[in-house]
Amino acid sequence: MNTRFQKQINFILEIDKLKTIFRKTRLLDNSRYENSAEHGWYMAIMAILLLEYSKESNIDILKVIKMALIHDIVEIDAGDTYLYDSESQKNKSQKEKKAAKRIFGILPDDQRDEFIILWNEFEEKKTKEAKFAAVLDRIGPLIQNYHTKGCEWKKNSIKSSQVYSANQHIEQGSTELWNFARQIIDDSVKKGYLVK
Amino acid sequence: MNTRFQKQINFILEIDKLKTIFRKTRLLDNSRYENSAEHGWYMAIMAILLLEYSKESNIDILKVIKMALIHDIVEIDAGDTYLYDSESQKNKSQKEKKAAKRIFGILPDDQRDEFIILWNEFEEKKTKEAKFAAVLDRIGPLIQNYHTKGCEWKKNSIKSSQVYSANQHIEQGSTELWNFARQIIDDSVKKGYLVK
Repeated sequence: MNTRFQKQINFILEIDKLKTIFRKTRLLDNSRYENSAEHGWYMAIMAILLLEYSKESNIDILKVIKMALIHDIVEIDAGDTYLYDSESQKNKSQKEKKAAKRIFGILPDDQRDEFIILWNEFEEKKTKEAKFAAVLDRIGPLIQNYHTKGCEWKKNSIKSSQVYSANQHIEQGSTELWNFARQIIDDSVKKGYLVK
Repeated sequence: MNTRFQKQINFILEIDKLKTIFRKTRLLDNSRYENSAEHGWYMAIMAILLLEYSKESNIDILKVIKMALIHDIVEIDAGDTYLYDSESQKNKSQKEKKAAKRIFGILPDDQRDEFIILWNEFEEKKTKEAKFAAVLDRIGPLIQNYHTKGCEWKKNSIKSSQVYSANQHIEQGSTELWNFARQIIDDSVKKGYLVK
């Protein structure tokens, strides 16, 4: 086996671990937490289905899907950071950068560079593809929290102001999906899933 | 919410169930079976990483990734069929066609048609994208079986001739990945993971 192929296989073996990283969102049947590999799959399908709601046009959908698939790989080392845990959010960036260097560094140089550039672009939320990917990264969990009757929100006494604040960037990527997110948040307050 | 958007959300709610469909391949740490959503994620990343090994050139990688993401959604109704269970394989096609009609039918007509056409193309394994996607669908499980010391193969007394037979189509999509698959199978016989 040549070195290039061996590096690709080593990366494939490494990222299997993402299936064991659990998030703070639950499956819709409320049976368990979702893991970050499943979240990547779900987000990539949403990218395909909801593309028409991107605020900006001429989106490179392949790039958005790639972002969805790889954006959480850093969690293999850095762990999942709960969106509403402000203390953990402080060290998140540094831990994830170190993780990106190690894990994407397993790949051949050209693929390592492609994935690191993609991951940075996603994190920075500046390009139209990154803005739209950031919408998708949040819409799924909002739907999941709403349809599990705010199970995790209630457990962590999350307030609607926190959810508004952490998700407001959806508006930059999609007007329709921001309206939808606001409906979910407001209805969650009415139903008692979120503290007002 | 307009009808089109409601249909898209209904589909997103429906396919969350794929995370509860378990396959007969295990995670590399051997802790549990892999589910079909995780498998879709894994296969889509492999499509990006291993594209250079496709026997045919000018592959539409976006199409391959879409196939990877949606190919198992039918299992929500039809269940996962073990590759080496020849009895269950007989009814697989009929059950899965019915499932495709129901589940993709939740979508707006244009997206329903796109996904059904893609799924049929994948199943028929005739186009270059479908042939390459079929390679990826098998390479992952071969790696997983090998690195879990043939745990499931041994449990089901699988013979190397069965693995050769069920995976030989890899050769049509990729010479390098077929050589790799053969190495895995032959070494698995030597190590006692597979019956000769």
